[in-house]
Amino acid sequence: MISKLVTKIKQTDAPIVVGLDPTMSNIPAKILDKEISEKGETFEAVGAAILEYNKALIDAVHDLVPAVKPQIAMYEQFGIPGLVAFTETVKYARQKGLIVIGDVKRGDIGSTSTAYANAHLGKVMVGKTSLAAFDEDFCTVNPYLGTDGIKPFIDVCNENDRGIFILVKTSNPSSGEFQDRVLHDEDSTLYEAVGFKVREWAKLSMDGAYSNIGAVVGATYPKMGEILRRIMPKSYILVPGYGAQGATGKDLKPFFDKDGLGAIINSSRGIIAAYKNAKYEKFGEDGFADAARAAVIDMKEDIRVNIH
Amino acid sequence: MISKLVTKIKQTDAPIVVGLDPTMSNIPAKILDKEISEKGETFEAVGAAILEYNKALIDAVHDLVPAVKPQIAMYEQFGIPGLVAFTETVKYARQKGLIVIGDVKRGDIGSTSTAYANAHLGKVMVGKTSLAAFDEDFCTVNPYLGTDGIKPFIDVCNENDRGIFILVKTSNPSSGEFQDRVLHDEDSTLYEAVGFKVREWAKLSMDGAYSNIGAVVGATYPKMGEILRRIMPKSYILVPGYGAQGATGKDLKPFFDKDGLGAIINSSRGIIAAYKNAKYEKFGEDGFADAARAAVIDMKEDIRVNIH
Repeated sequence: MISKLVTKIKQTDAPIVVGLDPTMSNIPAKILDKEISEKGETFEAVGAAILEYNKALIDAVHDLVPAVKPQIAMYEQFGIPGLVAFTETVKYARQKGLIVIGDVKRGDIGSTSTAYANAHLGKVMVGKTSLAAFDEDFCTVNPYLGTDGIKPFIDVCNENDRGIFILVKTSNPSSGEFQDRVLHDEDSTLYEAVGFKVREWAKLSMDGAYSNIGAVVGATYPKMGEILRRIMPKSYILVPGYGAQGATGKDLKPFFDKDGLGAIINSSRGIIAAYKNAKYEKFGEDGFADAARAAVIDMKEDIRVNIH
Repeated sequence: MISKLVTKIKQTDAPIVVGLDPTMSNIPAKILDKEISEKGETFEAVGAAILEYNKALIDAVHDLVPAVKPQIAMYEQFGIPGLVAFTETVKYARQKGLIVIGDVKRGDIGSTSTAYANAHLGKVMVGKTSLAAFDEDFCTVNPYLGTDGIKPFIDVCNENDRGIFILVKTSNPSSGEFQDRVLHDEDSTLYEAVGFKVREWAKLSMDGAYSNIGAVVGATYPKMGEILRRIMPKSYILVPGYGAQGATGKDLKPFFDKDGLGAIINSSRGIIAAYKNAKYEKFGEDGFADAARAAVIDMKEDIRVNIH
C-alpha cells in the first residue's frame, strides 16, 4: 500500500494529507441548520451534515492531494450516526481515488488487536462471506503495549495490502512526559526506543522502497524528526502539527528524505476551516470548499519552497 | 462514580467484572445460525447474535457481580451493526443495574481526546439538546500522549460523574518492551512513571476513599502490581489476565488493599465461554448462561480464599 501512496504523492507533487476532522463549529451553519430542521436536534442530523461537508471538501481537493485522514474521534462522539458518516466518508474518498488514513489510534493485545486491525484494514468471515467493516487504507496505531499489539496489525497489512502509522513522537505539548524520558540502558529516549522497534517492524512489510509500517512524528518537534528520520529509514512519517498547532513550512525539512519523499504532512483545520481564516475570507462561508482548495494550493507551495 | 462501584463490590462481595468479549466462535452456534438464517451472512446477523448472547449472560450474572466490561474491538470488527450491539449491550447492562466499563483504550490529544471522552462518558450538545453516544460508566484510556490526552477525560469524568482506568502495566507478554524500561533520571521504570502520573491525576477527581481515575495492571505481573498498589493508593486497579491469560487466584492479593478493596478482577473467556470448559461441560451449549453463572460463583470463591 505504501508504494501506492508514494506514487500518488509523486503524481500530485503534494506530500499532503487533508485531515477531515469535522466539528459542529466548523461545519458551515447553513449545512448543519438544514439537517437539523429536517431531522431535529439529533446525531442523525449531525452525521448527515458531516457527510455533506466532507463530500464537498473531497470534491474540492481530490485532484490536488493523494490522501485524506478522517479522525474517528470526531465522528465517534456522535454515536452510531457519526460512525455511519465516518464509513461513508471513507467510501466516498476511496471512490474519488484518494487514499484514506483512518486516524483511529487503536491498540490492544493479541486477538483484540487482530479485531481492531480487521475492523479498520481487514476483513471478517461470516459463514462463507468475507466482509469489511471500516475499510481504510492505512490507520494509526498506539505502541504502548509492545509487539503483541503491533504484530496483529502487521499481519492484517500483509494479508490485505494495507499500512499503519505507529505513534512515535506526538505533536502535543505534553508528549514529552513519557516519550522524551531517557532510558537507562541505552541512553536513548523512549521515542527513540519506539523508533528502533518501528525499524524492526518495518522489515516485516516492505513494499518497494518503503515499508507499509510507518510512524507518526509531530511537526512541532523538528529536531526529533531529524533523529527519527535516520532511525527509521524505511518508514514513511505521517506528520501532524502543521498549521493550527503551530509548525510552519520551515519545520518540515528534517522529516523528508533528500529526494523529497519519506514524509506526508497533515493539515486539518487549516484546510477544512480555511473559510474562517482572514486570509481566505473572500470565499465566505458558502465558499468553504473553494477556500479549502486555495489553502491546499498555498500549503503545497509552502512545502515545496521549504523542503527542496 | 468510583464510590458507586465500591458500594456495588461490597454489596455483591465480588470484586469481579465480567468481560463481554464476544467472538463468532464463542457465541453458541444455535444463536448465530438462527440469525444468519434470518439475516444472511451479514454483520447485522452477527450483531443480533452478539446482543442475544450478551443479554442472556447479563441476565445470568447481574445479581452476582457489580460490573461488566465490553471490549469494543470485538464489536467494532463487525462495523456499524457490531457497534449497535455494543451500544445496546451497554444500555441493557445499565438497565439491569450493572456498572459498565467500556474497554476502549482510546487516547488522543486536546479537542480530539475531549471528543473520545464525550463519546464514551459524556454528552454532546446538538442545538439545545444534550445527547450521549455510548454512555459507559467507565472507560479505559491509553497514556502514551501524556497529560494532554488524559486531562480532557478527567474533565468529562468530573462533569458527568464517570471514571477511567489508565493503562499502566498491561497483562500481555510483550508489555515490558516499553513499559518495563528503566528511566535514567529516577531509576524507576516507565510503568512506575506512568503510575506516579496516575497518582497526580487521581487527585483531580476524588470520590470518597478512591479516585475516579483508576489504573489497569495485569494479573500476570503480581510483583509489579504490589509496587503499583503502593504508588497509586487512591486509584482502583482494573486487573485483566485472570483465567485464560494464565493468572490464578494466588496472583491477585498484591493488587488489593488490606480491606479487600482497591482492585477489580476481570475475566472474559473464563466466564462467557465457560460452557466450552471441561469443568462446566455438563451445562452443554444450551446452558451457556448457567455455565457462566457457575464460573462466576467459582471465581468469587477463588478470589475470596486468596485475598483474605
